Amino acid sequence: VAIVTDVASVKATVLSELELLGTDLSRYVGSHPMAGREQAGTLSGRSDIFIGRPWVVSANEASSKSAVDQVEALALDLGASLVHLNPVEHDRAVALVSHAPQLISSLMAARLSDSEATDIALAGQGLRDTTRIAASDPRLWIQILSANSHEVAKVVSALKADLDQVLGSLNAVDKAGSLAAIGKLLEKGNLGVSRIPGKHGQRATEYAKVTVMIDDKPGELARLLTEIGEVGINLEDLTLEHATGAAVGLPELFVMPTVADKLVSELTQRGWKIVG
Amino acid sequence: VAIVTDVASVKATVLSELELLGTDLSRYVGSHPMAGREQAGTLSGRSDIFIGRPWVVSANEASSKSAVDQVEALALDLGASLVHLNPVEHDRAVALVSHAPQLISSLMAARLSDSEATDIALAGQGLRDTTRIAASDPRLWIQILSANSHEVAKVVSALKADLDQVLGSLNAVDKAGSLAAIGKLLEKGNLGVSRIPGKHGQRATEYAKVTVMIDDKPGELARLLTEIGEVGINLEDLTLEHATGAAVGLPELFVMPTVADKLVSELTQRGWKIVG
Repeated sequence: VAIVTDVASVKATVLSELELLGTDLSRYVGSHPMAGREQAGTLSGRSDIFIGRPWVVSANEASSKSAVDQVEALALDLGASLVHLNPVEHDRAVALVSHAPQLISSLMAARLSDSEATDIALAGQGLRDTTRIAASDPRLWIQILSANSHEVAKVVSALKADLDQVLGSLNAVDKAGSLAAIGKLLEKGNLGVSRIPGKHGQRATEYAKVTVMIDDKPGELARLLTEIGEVGINLEDLTLEHATGAAVGLPELFVMPTVADKLVSELTQRGWKIVG
Repeated sequence: VAIVTDVASVKATVLSELELLGTDLSRYVGSHPMAGREQAGTLSGRSDIFIGRPWVVSANEASSKSAVDQVEALALDLGASLVHLNPVEHDRAVALVSHAPQLISSLMAARLSDSEATDIALAGQGLRDTTRIAASDPRLWIQILSANSHEVAKVVSALKADLDQVLGSLNAVDKAGSLAAIGKLLEKGNLGVSRIPGKHGQRATEYAKVTVMIDDKPGELARLLTEIGEVGINLEDLTLEHATGAAVGLPELFVMPTVADKLVSELTQRGWKIVG
């Protein structure tokens, strides 16, 4: 029997359309390989982009065990990490972690579209990060958002209720309780972001950060990382920031907290400039 | 004559309080060194964190030339890049590029505070980026938001109007024009994000991206960067992504588009695996 799967970003509408068509659902298992950041063109013919990425296998109630097994085998063959969610659970999850953030990021970025260039010139990393995904393809996202409109609207409506409360507080900052209400929402944001797993599946905050100032020229970063390798310290993550208008780079090195002191002292001994 | 400056994140309220006190404003020049990402503790005793960062010098109408000169000299001595904005312009700019994004990021993150852990487990880089700054200190941000409440409310109100429109469309996706309305806002987001300068002050999109798959072990990244240095290619930016549940790392190398093909062919020749 032929097995049918799909790789769409939304699962419940696909299933309900198949139901409407009277299809044999026992040989259908929805799936959603969460690779390529849902940007157009990324899936162009490479199988290795699935390695280590979540792959949601979304069986329906009628899916046969052998059909599920084969879709799982495909995901595992491609090196993906299996996640099992039914179509409703899947759509609720992606509305929260992907579709609503996309919309909110786009709405924030839209505020920049007709503002003064001199204002935008003050942009820092915070704005870049919050609006990065707003560069995504609108045609693709109209499809995704409309196919999952119900779940996305639920998340966005709840966010709007919080936004209304903040706006009321901002418009009456001298009123008793206004600042406390804003503070409560900011704390709720702290709590929410602390629940996001890090890239390794660990909390991102479990790493210690060491910032080094290096000359912004070829080979400097390689030299730094080579010396870190020689000391035997494993880098868990790395970001590279260039200073504006100065020929220096500011790599941020993330390591396990237990080796952070060693990293700082070893690098300092070797003449590197630690700046954070 | 003693010169007075300050380093607060909001400028108009500081000035108006000094006016109310009847202070001699000729020797006051507000300033805002935009370093340290406004996180607590970062400014702890280091002068080198200002290098290459914007430093807003916000003279008032009464500020004497010598007072402005001295504050500028301080900023330049510390290696910062000077930006001149009057207090009202400054507060409008930071409301747009910093304060509103902070609030929106916190409101999105707040949605994660009481949701299912299994839903959050599907989080990808998009959610991490849009909510990263929501980890900031609420006590600090209550002060900033309330001191700049008027300008922040303006940005957030406009965003709310867009949000209301999207919600209406999501709740009626089958209605004529609904998808077009969502698409228009997503395109406005595209336009907005394209106006943000890159870390070097260039557009971030001017770089070409090459993703390499490496073994997730000490020394591999250093070896890769050493070889790139040997080829004489300058890395403009670098991000490092670890695959979930697989011992591989996925460094994304950003280079000038003119050298991207050379980078891919040189790395391939040397046996590196290019995956994007």
